[in-house]
Amino acid sequence: MDPKRLKGLLEAISSGELKIEHAMRELQGDELKKDDLVYATVDLERQRRTGFPEVIYGASKTAEQIASILEHLNQAGQNAIATRVEPAKARQILVQVPQATYAEVAQIVHCEVTPIALLGKGEIGVLCAGTSDLPVAEEAAVVAELLGNTVCRITDVGVAGVHRLLRHTATLQRCRVLIVVAGMEGALPSVVAGLTDRPIIAVPTSVGYGSAFGGLTALLAMLNSCATGLSVVNIDNGFGAATQATLINRLP
Amino acid sequence: MDPKRLKGLLEAISSGELKIEHAMRELQGDELKKDDLVYATVDLERQRRTGFPEVIYGASKTAEQIASILEHLNQAGQNAIATRVEPAKARQILVQVPQATYAEVAQIVHCEVTPIALLGKGEIGVLCAGTSDLPVAEEAAVVAELLGNTVCRITDVGVAGVHRLLRHTATLQRCRVLIVVAGMEGALPSVVAGLTDRPIIAVPTSVGYGSAFGGLTALLAMLNSCATGLSVVNIDNGFGAATQATLINRLP
Amino acid sequence: MDPKRLKGLLEAISSGELKIEHAMRELQGDELKKDDLVYATVDLERQRRTGFPEVIYGASKTAEQIASILEHLNQAGQNAIATRVEPAKARQILVQVPQATYAEVAQIVHCEVTPIALLGKGEIGVLCAGTSDLPVAEEAAVVAELLGNTVCRITDVGVAGVHRLLRHTATLQRCRVLIVVAGMEGALPSVVAGLTDRPIIAVPTSVGYGSAFGGLTALLAMLNSCATGLSVVNIDNGFGAATQATLINRLP
Amino acid sequence: MDPKRLKGLLEAISSGELKIEHAMRELQGDELKKDDLVYATVDLERQRRTGFPEVIYGASKTAEQIASILEHLNQAGQNAIATRVEPAKARQILVQVPQATYAEVAQIVHCEVTPIALLGKGEIGVLCAGTSDLPVAEEAAVVAELLGNTVCRITDVGVAGVHRLLRHTATLQRCRVLIVVAGMEGALPSVVAGLTDRPIIAVPTSVGYGSAFGGLTALLAMLNSCATGLSVVNIDNGFGAATQATLINRLP
Amino acid sequence: MDPKRLKGLLEAISSGELKIEHAMRELQGDELKKDDLVYATVDLERQRRTGFPEVIYGASKTAEQIASILEHLNQAGQNAIATRVEPAKARQILVQVPQATYAEVAQIVHCEVTPIALLGKGEIGVLCAGTSDLPVAEEAAVVAELLGNTVCRITDVGVAGVHRLLRHTATLQRCRVLIVVAGMEGALPSVVAGLTDRPIIAVPTSVGYGSAFGGLTALLAMLNSCATGLSVVNIDNGFGAATQATLINRLP
Amino acid sequence: MDPKRLKGLLEAISSGELKIEHAMRELQGDELKKDDLVYATVDLERQRRTGFPEVIYGASKTAEQIASILEHLNQAGQNAIATRVEPAKARQILVQVPQATYAEVAQIVHCEVTPIALLGKGEIGVLCAGTSDLPVAEEAAVVAELLGNTVCRITDVGVAGVHRLLRHTATLQRCRVLIVVAGMEGALPSVVAGLTDRPIIAVPTSVGYGSAFGGLTALLAMLNSCATGLSVVNIDNGFGAATQATLINRLP
Amino acid sequence: MDPKRLKGLLEAISSGELKIEHAMRELQGDELKKDDLVYATVDLERQRRTGFPEVIYGASKTAEQIASILEHLNQAGQNAIATRVEPAKARQILVQVPQATYAEVAQIVHCEVTPIALLGKGEIGVLCAGTSDLPVAEEAAVVAELLGNTVCRITDVGVAGVHRLLRHTATLQRCRVLIVVAGMEGALPSVVAGLTDRPIIAVPTSVGYGSAFGGLTALLAMLNSCATGLSVVNIDNGFGAATQATLINRLP
Amino acid sequence: MDPKRLKGLLEAISSGELKIEHAMRELQGDELKKDDLVYATVDLERQRRTGFPEVIYGASKTAEQIASILEHLNQAGQNAIATRVEPAKARQILVQVPQATYAEVAQIVHCEVTPIALLGKGEIGVLCAGTSDLPVAEEAAVVAELLGNTVCRITDVGVAGVHRLLRHTATLQRCRVLIVVAGMEGALPSVVAGLTDRPIIAVPTSVGYGSAFGGLTALLAMLNSCATGLSVVNIDNGFGAATQATLINRLP
Repeated sequence: MDPKRLKGLLEAISSGELKIEHAMRELQGDELKKDDLVYATVDLERQRRTGFPEVIYGASKTAEQIASILEHLNQAGQNAIATRVEPAKARQILVQVPQATYAEVAQIVHCEVTPIALLGKGEIGVLCAGTSDLPVAEEAAVVAELLGNTVCRITDVGVAGVHRLLRHTATLQRCRVLIVVAGMEGALPSVVAGLTDRPIIAVPTSVGYGSAFGGLTALLAMLNSCATGLSVVNIDNGFGAATQATLINRLP
Repeated sequence: MDPKRLKGLLEAISSGELKIEHAMRELQGDELKKDDLVYATVDLERQRRTGFPEVIYGASKTAEQIASILEHLNQAGQNAIATRVEPAKARQILVQVPQATYAEVAQIVHCEVTPIALLGKGEIGVLCAGTSDLPVAEEAAVVAELLGNTVCRITDVGVAGVHRLLRHTATLQRCRVLIVVAGMEGALPSVVAGLTDRPIIAVPTSVGYGSAFGGLTALLAMLNSCATGLSVVNIDNGFGAATQATLINRLP
Repeated sequence: MDPKRLKGLLEAISSGELKIEHAMRELQGDELKKDDLVYATVDLERQRRTGFPEVIYGASKTAEQIASILEHLNQAGQNAIATRVEPAKARQILVQVPQATYAEVAQIVHCEVTPIALLGKGEIGVLCAGTSDLPVAEEAAVVAELLGNTVCRITDVGVAGVHRLLRHTATLQRCRVLIVVAGMEGALPSVVAGLTDRPIIAVPTSVGYGSAFGGLTALLAMLNSCATGLSVVNIDNGFGAATQATLINRLP
Repeated sequence: MDPKRLKGLLEAISSGELKIEHAMRELQGDELKKDDLVYATVDLERQRRTGFPEVIYGASKTAEQIASILEHLNQAGQNAIATRVEPAKARQILVQVPQATYAEVAQIVHCEVTPIALLGKGEIGVLCAGTSDLPVAEEAAVVAELLGNTVCRITDVGVAGVHRLLRHTATLQRCRVLIVVAGMEGALPSVVAGLTDRPIIAVPTSVGYGSAFGGLTALLAMLNSCATGLSVVNIDNGFGAATQATLINRLP
Repeated sequence: MDPKRLKGLLEAISSGELKIEHAMRELQGDELKKDDLVYATVDLERQRRTGFPEVIYGASKTAEQIASILEHLNQAGQNAIATRVEPAKARQILVQVPQATYAEVAQIVHCEVTPIALLGKGEIGVLCAGTSDLPVAEEAAVVAELLGNTVCRITDVGVAGVHRLLRHTATLQRCRVLIVVAGMEGALPSVVAGLTDRPIIAVPTSVGYGSAFGGLTALLAMLNSCATGLSVVNIDNGFGAATQATLINRLP
Repeated sequence: MDPKRLKGLLEAISSGELKIEHAMRELQGDELKKDDLVYATVDLERQRRTGFPEVIYGASKTAEQIASILEHLNQAGQNAIATRVEPAKARQILVQVPQATYAEVAQIVHCEVTPIALLGKGEIGVLCAGTSDLPVAEEAAVVAELLGNTVCRITDVGVAGVHRLLRHTATLQRCRVLIVVAGMEGALPSVVAGLTDRPIIAVPTSVGYGSAFGGLTALLAMLNSCATGLSVVNIDNGFGAATQATLINRLP
Repeated sequence: MDPKRLKGLLEAISSGELKIEHAMRELQGDELKKDDLVYATVDLERQRRTGFPEVIYGASKTAEQIASILEHLNQAGQNAIATRVEPAKARQILVQVPQATYAEVAQIVHCEVTPIALLGKGEIGVLCAGTSDLPVAEEAAVVAELLGNTVCRITDVGVAGVHRLLRHTATLQRCRVLIVVAGMEGALPSVVAGLTDRPIIAVPTSVGYGSAFGGLTALLAMLNSCATGLSVVNIDNGFGAATQATLINRLP
Repeated sequence: MDPKRLKGLLEAISSGELKIEHAMRELQGDELKKDDLVYATVDLERQRRTGFPEVIYGASKTAEQIASILEHLNQAGQNAIATRVEPAKARQILVQVPQATYAEVAQIVHCEVTPIALLGKGEIGVLCAGTSDLPVAEEAAVVAELLGNTVCRITDVGVAGVHRLLRHTATLQRCRVLIVVAGMEGALPSVVAGLTDRPIIAVPTSVGYGSAFGGLTALLAMLNSCATGLSVVNIDNGFGAATQATLINRLP
């Protein structure tokens, strides 16, 4: 074990941030220090290590599984986020985990057992081309907020009505980093990039039909932008955009 | 032979527009009335039938072949257009066919033996996102002019600098039909469609690299436009856009 | 706000076409003048601005949502169209919005609160290769009618029985613009284009199986047509074809 | 060795069709009876076994290699065909193998040392959409002739001018099997299939550009034909179409 | 109307094969002689024209619709076939149309009101790689039988156990034409083609998972066969293979 | 013109950063203030507006064209960068533009007429999986340097020898933003992201063969990273990564 | 029948491993010695021939069918494995076949009527990137065990936390062959291959979303690994990996 | 440094296998112990670490670069292999490095300065479908030999003549591991897998045209094999197959 890591471990025990039994296993162990839930290995030290709480990808888990992991993390004093939780599933979870909150459009369940520290240096702007793109944009916005950022939302500014976007030019310049969400032809990030010198994270969505190919068209369009200063994450990956925007926004 | 067609044929003889020998073959023939050039079947009555002169796709032919077809058409009193003719090939052709003219950016050789009638009712606008898209835009523009239209060109108005495009809003509204050419992310037609109520023909170009996939990205983006009132032709098909724009512009 | 737009706004108030409260928000607003429905931003001035009524993409909305938007638009004196509404959903909507009408094959619900003005200069022809393509063809035809065009339908003229199509040659020439709908190998637009000099908008459908790839084959075939004068819209996009045909048909 | 095969072998020796030394090796051998040319294993008994002469795929061989294999086969009393031989390569071969003949458009070199028996029961029709498709159509036609069929060629009958095809309806019905060659949107086989009840082998070609994707579009279109009675071979595979048409045409 | 067609029509009336009222409409008609069923245009003269009965593609129709079309055809004295009819749907149909028969594996409902004439000159062999491919193979086999052919079935002869196939070598040679059905890697047609000189129609199936891509892998493999004498139809298109095999088998 | 922009313009004149004549055109202009070079529109104020100098995409231009643009920009007092310049082309340019410098591995020609200000707040790390990826990594590194950043290079740390990467853990943490370049399976960014909490821009390269598909595999792998905090640019787009990293590194 | 096979057959009768009636059919038979179950041909001698028991692909069969085949095999004294059996289906099967066991995560039902001989020479390691990949990893692990191997499982060692993997370096070296399972970017096999000189079979999974394309991205990444000594099986094909690992592990 | 590695290092010095200066750098080093050649980092201890000599991917290097690396390795007492070296390049290399040998079909240059130890426990069989696949098969065979294996070659056993393959059944069973190389439809590995219980590594080649898509078809076919016990490497990756076969063949 490297000295820096060891020191961090001991400090975490000292401050009560880490329980003795977890530290024991870490110090002894040939194995990963994870609790044994049948259906998921829960990483109880993640928040300390990465500054990010555990994020549960809810799409492939049952309500019972998500609820158990949330409770488990809370008992360890951890905040927790579950993404891609459909309304019906969320209702079941909230019965079992009353301290949880549900952001419906974002499809996110989260439990805040320790207050979220505002670690972001500035605002993160989240732009969205059409109302159908809102779930992805909200996933990005809510995750960014839960990771300690102030978020500014601008919705329904698709390129087919470019004047709607131009009204927000000042806001675009005020934010420290921008997340731009669009489906169909995925053109919005290119237009935004021409109106600001802030770094832009483009998020293609699966909105569209036919040759939209589930977001592939928007993805390719964003990768081939004629504008500079933007990069791209996976289709519908509002969460991924939020984590990168957070890292950028935490830069000193 | 249907009566309308027969009448047209006789009228064409009467007006001298069609030579007797060609009419003979048409009236007798179980076979198509085409002259026998070894390397190409030349359709000498096309201009009369469709209102369009013969257009030679030059990419798959030698300078000698193109020159021969041009001369042949001219001798039959026809205008002719050869597209996709590279400069070196064009120089060879112009030696053999001195009455021909070369539009270098458009890569078009044409011979005007009968004056081009201005059949278009209004202007056709040809917009172009970047300077690399110019050859395709010029193919569209020059073909449109040779088919009897007035053309208005707007170049270098890519979406990463949307203010450049906004200066042309009045022009967009003045044209009767718009051809919008773009490579890379192919977003320009969507933005233009939001600024006008004229029909738009979108032309994707093969400009770009990597995941531009030779124009596929621009093509898909245009097909998935969030704007209404636009349709799309094949990658780099400036010629095809020009023919459809011409048909629209000739509508009474 | 530009002068032309301001004048239009005031005239709309004066004529009663626009309610005072909507105008207020437009004149004050740094924000888009949209009503706040939880699930959708409704653009109440669209019909005035673009000559097109609001069109609701019904596939991603519940019956309740569609019904609410329709009522909202009607109360603002607007016609409204909802596309891609399945029969069961339509039945629910018609209970809540009794003034609505349902075109079953086209899967379109619409409310006509102001009479549709016949703005189209001529007929729009809608051709259809097979009976399976009818829903897309009818989406195009009904939308075209609701946008103020006279429509002429020709169905079941697939290329495997080309004589069926040849009987309609005169009709093809009479229409001002043609929408040609086909799935599977998507060959119909090419054949039609050889029989007329009218502009053709080709609509690929997702009809087929196996290597039809949900309409991709028909789309590619149409983009690579050997005929001139046609362009293409997205797979199953009867609506898009209708809007472009409408713009063409309104050309003076 | 099965009795039928043994009997065939002995009859071939008896008739002089097979040399003793080759029969020896066949009867003894644990190994394939092939001559050792460094660059290619030549199957000297193929013509006897399959009724087809050896066909050399010339694209991946040098002029020297092709010439050697041809001579080798001729010395064994065999006819031989080399496909995909470009003109320059063909000229080199003809110097070394003076008895060879070159079909330029088909890009086929062949040597006829034993007269070709007319084994086909009827005519094979070879149709071709455009002049650019001619090389593939000619590969099919020439191979069919060299395999003992009478061939009827119909060229330049693309679907954008369907009247040109309709003139040949009687011919389509007269042939016993049809090979239909087309690039771009690949629609010709569907239209032909509606005009005849003969089996059709569709051959997509790589003619086209942009989203023609080197023949993929034509291939997919043909596989998704709305017509019955047709099947498809690989892109540009005139040779493959000819072999299947030959097997069909030899059916008693 | 061409003389041959007219004569055929009159003979059909004379023989009672065609009802007077149908002939009337044919002789008068500018329109296709089809009965008006709301959901489908039924071609009542197809059997006479093409020698094939009407085939209903059942996948996109309800039990009620299929039953109605079957009854309608039967009342016109026609045999009829409906393909892609799932068991539950078939049970409903058989209640309404008691004279119909259901071939469960093939998923075909058919009504034989006139005896099927044996028009095929020889046997059609239908081979099948694995038991999962049986539905497609049976679609081919049953359709071939209903079109008047004798069929020989060979199942479960996938290439991973090539000895199983070799036992059938004599049969392969006895058939006049072979339909070879395989999913996954689609290799069976290549191996079969090396064992016979009969024409082979290869049918890829959607059997497989992962990179089988719904049959695309098998389709591509078949198109790229190293063997000669085979051609390919669309994925799962047992029906298409049967129609082509029928045309081949009817060749005099 | 917005006040902020106007003020910036006047300040630029006052400081001599902008010539009067350019300001005139900007203030008057209905047109873009660009000099007329036949082959390229050169944007002389870009550096002032965006903080970035003009970057010429050299791949589609001749040596003469690049040299002219460089000279033109230099005369206007601008730095300039040309990317994708092959060695032979570069040698020609350096003869005509002696003040230019060539970075051979990066394939970049640049002219520094005004000293580059160090605007980046920290270091940008550029990591590279294999030596074949070096040209893309160097494009990123050199562009980043020319845009005013300190760059730290780490090469040949592909994932198949993960110990090589682990030696650099401290460096990864010291940089403010990381550009990670990899071809083939594109796995390096995922591994790096697990070792640092800095934002990562992943650059796929076209290194590889067969199913690497010109970089598509690496691109897809990066988009689907199991790690958080990374986003992706186009294949081989070292330039794009550098511009985004620059914007991030300039954040106050 | 070859002598070795004949001897094996007689020995199997002698040892009671094969029933007389089955031997009869084998010795007489022109047909495969398979029992006639309506829905599946069951190969009762497979275990003797290949050393592998019959493996039923459960995804395409009903609970009744699977249960019948299992019972049938057991009555013939055979072990049997059914893969891809969902829990609900498994519960039904276990009622009918009480001697069967269900491995839930692996989705495998199996019956062990003769004890499994430990034929593997060493351990097979099964590594797994994330918990979502567990079903595929367990399919591999359980099949390997049922085929007579000792298996060592290492889970949740995805590349975004490479230290987790490094703790297992000794284990990687101890196993005789490794199966490495990963979805999303599919990078784990490359990293593992750098830590061991054991052969690696990489298994891509369909875990992921958007541009993961159902496992295609992971598959491509694994095929393009920069590491040596690994090969790849189909997406989610844990079974295939287990059979190859078994063959390797049985090597003397 | 782990103890095992340290001990290995000291033993290598003791045996003279490693030079003192290299050991020095290893023991001191925060950096990789690689010699500085401008164009390539050469890993001088690879042979000791992995049991494999350095393998140079020659396709992307000049003759001079390859020659220098070879000399450099030889001076360090290492054997070296360069793959993908075209004949012209090889001739240049052999002038500069006279101790090198060239295997022309395999396109491999190698230098054997220390005798190759026969580390493989048995034979590796290399099978090849057609003569066009020979370069890839030879790359596999020669690399396997240079890595210390006995190789058995079987060529020209494509599946369209399955009897040719059946003659080699005994050989297939005698080898310890099989490499099976095929292009076009890629069916050979499936057939071979049914004839042996040895592990099979399938190598798709780029041989073919049209829808062979540069080897993609063969790759997909192999991944979807209906046979068990095989896995797949990248297109044309004979080298990769040889390294995995070597690891398998070295298993004790």
